[in-house]
Amino acid sequence: MKKLAIGIDLGGTYIKGIVIDKLGHGSHLTRVPTEAHKGGEHVLDKILSLIDILKTKTTNGEQIIGVGIGTPGFVDADGTVLGGAENIPGWKGVQLNSSVKHRFGLKAVALNDVTAATLAELKYGAGKGVKNMACFALGTGVGGGIIIDNKVYKGSHGMAGELGHIVVETNGFPCNCGQRGCIEQYASATGIVRIAREICNDLAGKEDGSLINEFSKKPDNITSRLIYEYVNKKDPVALLVNEKFTDMLARAIGIVVNILSPDRIVLGGGVMMAGEVIIDSVKRHIPRYCWKDIWQRCDLTIAKLGEDAGVLGAGALVFEECP
Amino acid sequence: MKKLAIGIDLGGTYIKGIVIDKLGHGSHLTRVPTEAHKGGEHVLDKILSLIDILKTKTTNGEQIIGVGIGTPGFVDADGTVLGGAENIPGWKGVQLNSSVKHRFGLKAVALNDVTAATLAELKYGAGKGVKNMACFALGTGVGGGIIIDNKVYKGSHGMAGELGHIVVETNGFPCNCGQRGCIEQYASATGIVRIAREICNDLAGKEDGSLINEFSKKPDNITSRLIYEYVNKKDPVALLVNEKFTDMLARAIGIVVNILSPDRIVLGGGVMMAGEVIIDSVKRHIPRYCWKDIWQRCDLTIAKLGEDAGVLGAGALVFEECP
Repeated sequence: MKKLAIGIDLGGTYIKGIVIDKLGHGSHLTRVPTEAHKGGEHVLDKILSLIDILKTKTTNGEQIIGVGIGTPGFVDADGTVLGGAENIPGWKGVQLNSSVKHRFGLKAVALNDVTAATLAELKYGAGKGVKNMACFALGTGVGGGIIIDNKVYKGSHGMAGELGHIVVETNGFPCNCGQRGCIEQYASATGIVRIAREICNDLAGKEDGSLINEFSKKPDNITSRLIYEYVNKKDPVALLVNEKFTDMLARAIGIVVNILSPDRIVLGGGVMMAGEVIIDSVKRHIPRYCWKDIWQRCDLTIAKLGEDAGVLGAGALVFEECP
Repeated sequence: MKKLAIGIDLGGTYIKGIVIDKLGHGSHLTRVPTEAHKGGEHVLDKILSLIDILKTKTTNGEQIIGVGIGTPGFVDADGTVLGGAENIPGWKGVQLNSSVKHRFGLKAVALNDVTAATLAELKYGAGKGVKNMACFALGTGVGGGIIIDNKVYKGSHGMAGELGHIVVETNGFPCNCGQRGCIEQYASATGIVRIAREICNDLAGKEDGSLINEFSKKPDNITSRLIYEYVNKKDPVALLVNEKFTDMLARAIGIVVNILSPDRIVLGGGVMMAGEVIIDSVKRHIPRYCWKDIWQRCDLTIAKLGEDAGVLGAGALVFEECP
């Protein structure tokens, strides 16, 4: 009997599901709309329906040994959502593991979505063979995941790895978490656009760069992707934006490097579509923000698995926890 | 045959040694001057002589199974000092484990001194029964130690836990590590005195507090201990110093809490002789500097083992690594 796992990745827009084997080969990748506005119970139903669909796709020679579920926010070892996923009303308090067990008789393991993606990178992607690792996911927000001793580190209550809320600027930009100057406010897609807007406003009239023109014409169309198109064209204002964003990110990475002395830092998420130009810039800044002796023994690289890392990692956790 | 370990704690002034059993009961605690100015080779000789002395104190029914050595700075898994202990010239590059093996035929394990103290607190002190923990040692500098999954976390190269160099103030006071605004510059004994000096200078003439009088009379006699005598007398200026120092410390603790979601944070080192007044103040500040959901599941307490934590932890590591 071939052992398989179902991985589920809950996002703000879509819920994704996959069937994977122990080596990380996935099949039947499926996505359904999250419909977050309909509330936590509805979202849980959609997850259970998706598991049902994926279950029916297995054949006689295959056995589903468990379900892994990646969710935004905090989820404890029992699979109870503890908070931190405010875009899904009523998600806090939902019991994931027992709901799956009750409906399908299957063992379920839940974890934070970025932690799941970090596990996938460890096993199948940019972290292969690495013992200790930290991952920053630069997307709408900034998430984090930590690998200690080849295993996902979730902390005692499933809440560890909130790397997006490392403060990198005292009295900096206000963050949703209540602090000021969190790296999420500078290294997320929206954070980069805000940095660009500030620089363009400051320089308006002084410089006549193309990015400034874009801002004055269509300020609402600016994305981190567009900014990096200008970076690649060596637009001087876009290069300033890249310097500021990567300097801020290097501060957060430096703190993580000093605390964890990992073998590798992995940068993923939509922002990293811009590629090596970010890695190169961050590498220039990092030595100012941590011990050189530690940094010499660490490397920095781009995530390899793209947007499916979360769903693969959720499935991979099943093999880790139900060996 | 009763199994025993030798623990060694290398400090700037003294080298301490002890014989301990698996339960942490120590005997023959001995200290010799470090004579750091005579250089790394000399200090290594003194450590080896101390091991020799402690070895001869065991009786026929006892067996020394190994030696644990705590040292300032970074030391890798092979026992090679990689740096970070600048007050001992020539200490970098010294090979601790093989030197002990060569001279005595005993297995040796080396680790950072604060990491050793953290292990001792886990096994015999303030961290008993705790799974994930971080320790700040507030002394001449600020050191750190991390426990993950009931074990010392040293990072891949023995360098993890540099909690003293978490930046808590952008463009803050310059630190020896090359950064600015590290918590070491605010929460060490010297950092607290500097905060006090700045506040006293700012307020000179405006306030007429006793701490200000002390500073104007004998500025060189001010210590963190004296400042806390005034805190206990509710001297208004000393209370301001306590507020500033504990606010800064709370920022660093908040970052560690968000990253590691530990069960417990332990504060040790000479500064903590001042006791619960520091814990109470830090607890007031922390909720502003991390996720409340995470902090609710963490506690903060004073180290229990005092200045012998390092030597006990060095010995304890032998039982961890040579079970």
